[in-house]
Amino acid sequence: MMEIRFDPKKGIWAEDDETYEKLRKNYFGTKERGGRIRLEIEEALYLITFQNASCWMGKKQIGFNELASYFAKKDKRLFIKYNAYRDWRDRGLVVKSIDLVEIKKKRKIRGTRYPAEKLKTKKLRVKIYWYPDSLFSVLEDENLGKKLFNDYWFGQFGIYKQERGALLKLNFLETIFLAKHFGVRVVNVENGKEIKPSQILRQVTKEREYTKSLYGVYEEWRLRGYVVKTGFKFGSHFRIYFPGASPAKEEKWIHSKHVLHVFPKEQKLLISEWARAVRVAHGVKKTFLLSVPELKKKDYVNYPSDFITYRRKKVGGNWIRETLEDKARYLLVAVSEDEHIGGVELASILAKAESMGLNVLLSITDRETSITYYVLNKIKLPGSRYEYYEIEWMKP
Amino acid sequence: MMEIRFDPKKGIWAEDDETYEKLRKNYFGTKERGGRIRLEIEEALYLITFQNASCWMGKKQIGFNELASYFAKKDKRLFIKYNAYRDWRDRGLVVKSIDLVEIKKKRKIRGTRYPAEKLKTKKLRVKIYWYPDSLFSVLEDENLGKKLFNDYWFGQFGIYKQERGALLKLNFLETIFLAKHFGVRVVNVENGKEIKPSQILRQVTKEREYTKSLYGVYEEWRLRGYVVKTGFKFGSHFRIYFPGASPAKEEKWIHSKHVLHVFPKEQKLLISEWARAVRVAHGVKKTFLLSVPELKKKDYVNYPSDFITYRRKKVGGNWIRETLEDKARYLLVAVSEDEHIGGVELASILAKAESMGLNVLLSITDRETSITYYVLNKIKLPGSRYEYYEIEWMKP
Repeated sequence: MMEIRFDPKKGIWAEDDETYEKLRKNYFGTKERGGRIRLEIEEALYLITFQNASCWMGKKQIGFNELASYFAKKDKRLFIKYNAYRDWRDRGLVVKSIDLVEIKKKRKIRGTRYPAEKLKTKKLRVKIYWYPDSLFSVLEDENLGKKLFNDYWFGQFGIYKQERGALLKLNFLETIFLAKHFGVRVVNVENGKEIKPSQILRQVTKEREYTKSLYGVYEEWRLRGYVVKTGFKFGSHFRIYFPGASPAKEEKWIHSKHVLHVFPKEQKLLISEWARAVRVAHGVKKTFLLSVPELKKKDYVNYPSDFITYRRKKVGGNWIRETLEDKARYLLVAVSEDEHIGGVELASILAKAESMGLNVLLSITDRETSITYYVLNKIKLPGSRYEYYEIEWMKP
Repeated sequence: MMEIRFDPKKGIWAEDDETYEKLRKNYFGTKERGGRIRLEIEEALYLITFQNASCWMGKKQIGFNELASYFAKKDKRLFIKYNAYRDWRDRGLVVKSIDLVEIKKKRKIRGTRYPAEKLKTKKLRVKIYWYPDSLFSVLEDENLGKKLFNDYWFGQFGIYKQERGALLKLNFLETIFLAKHFGVRVVNVENGKEIKPSQILRQVTKEREYTKSLYGVYEEWRLRGYVVKTGFKFGSHFRIYFPGASPAKEEKWIHSKHVLHVFPKEQKLLISEWARAVRVAHGVKKTFLLSVPELKKKDYVNYPSDFITYRRKKVGGNWIRETLEDKARYLLVAVSEDEHIGGVELASILAKAESMGLNVLLSITDRETSITYYVLNKIKLPGSRYEYYEIEWMKP
């Protein structure tokens, strides 16, 4: 039976040779100068629960809760961190507290490069009518409506996938964009007065929170040639099509492969709500892109990131686990279903990971202690002002 | 060509015989005493756009936007209402403004009855340790842990679907419930002091909004014999199993068929966020249950409900559309992706529909003017203090 020792003043350690050997082989603990192996609290709790270790405080044997009680006050998220540690270890993989890993060889975090094509705008001498509370505008000019729909895929011309109806219906993002970049004049249907794009933005913001962030992202992708349509059916803010997509060009209807969700930097979301959006995209086999708009250097915070994790590598045709001797892979952040995360926090973790040559791995403990993993990869959109990430569900 | 007339003082109407006949046959308009057919604004806009009708104001022909401009100020949601009307009409079905339908024969809205079995509680003399910031507690007594897991499916014993580990991990809802109904003593791991269920509830509420609503729903279903586990993997607050379910009873793992989402009465949600939760459940083929807890009589409001709709019936082996002569089916509420709805509003619509012998049909216009429909049916859980509804995606 494996024996480990605890002293409130000295911490947790193992001293007998047999235990020492077992721990070392499995990358538990840290060798100290005196030769002892020092254990982190998560490691000790894991050894007690799954490796049949007995923990001794002097001559008294103590259990999971009693040992934890000496650490829980200082380490508020102890149970969630332990659970994240537990799950990764259970998969036969190596995980180590971030404070104990010295990263010598960094991986290069390249990020996925997305193409861009400058949008060709033109001056349009036309009026559209804005329905302020409905957040839509209507263009009655049939030829121009058809052209804006077929060439740019702005709005909805007639009925979806049918050749009926000749109105072009434009949502508030398209209305603002056409006013700003195509010189379209927008008239308020309620009073016949022209309304400026900035006024529309202000008005919509009053009814719908975070409209500025939403429009900022919409505009940025549109100006780079992307088609940006609602992601409502896929549970996200937008679905996007790469430059060149049109509803009219192809014989077959084209399908978007990406959905884009805007996470305003000032918004705090329950992890469960955040995950829900990713989950819908995953369910329909689309790549989920997350955007945190309008971030400034001073916004970044120091969010707790807990562990460094390793996966497997192929050696001579076999998959073997990576160890502390390999390049580290992920910065693991342990969170629970019922806590909150903000756009700023997420961006800060990503910046920290990038500087360490790591990808971010979000480990979410649900109310049944099951873990769901998401990997976050940066993407590069040329000339973009905002930050974008691909989020993928991952099974270690 | 169909001709309709408009006068700002007199409204919209048709007067020639040919138009009159066409309208009457298709359940457009209302016959007035003078013999004229009066048209609602949505009807007129639809006729202009899809039935090639010309609209005359004196000797001037006017289009969609100009006609709408006379109504938009008073009828703020005009475009969204028109779009909802348009979509239902496009399917060859009858829809009528709620003010114009006199319901003579009411349908009986039964609601689905759910079974209930009184939960057998007992006094347990045991201590569990509460990790306040992690929102979990841990029971170390292996025998009792296994029993609570197998007999009641409380918490997670050991590792999910594996026979390893002997701790029972209980989330905050289970911790409060066991303390309240099984006399379990909860000790704060940080200071060794006992903590009362009401204190836990208060503490969690500080970190996680709407905890009281969440617990209220959890307790209500648990006391009626249901097993209530996290719905995290399905994008909802809970998944539920009918009375008698256990993780140990069956040879095969049993699957839940219902997810349950709590919509606190004071919470306002974007329709798109609300729909996202329903969508995940639908994607995994589970019945989505919505709960609005703690409603009182005085909470109900008068939320605008727009139309009465009819579907199809089978006559002599053929499906034909229902008309104003049939029993009305749905109270249609037209909303858009980018507006908000609250728990109180939703419950109010449902109460109104029930009193009229109708089901609620939510018609959601997305930013591309596509419509998604959801039907809301009341369910009956014996002795329940809250309201619950099944929400189903519907294709007319």
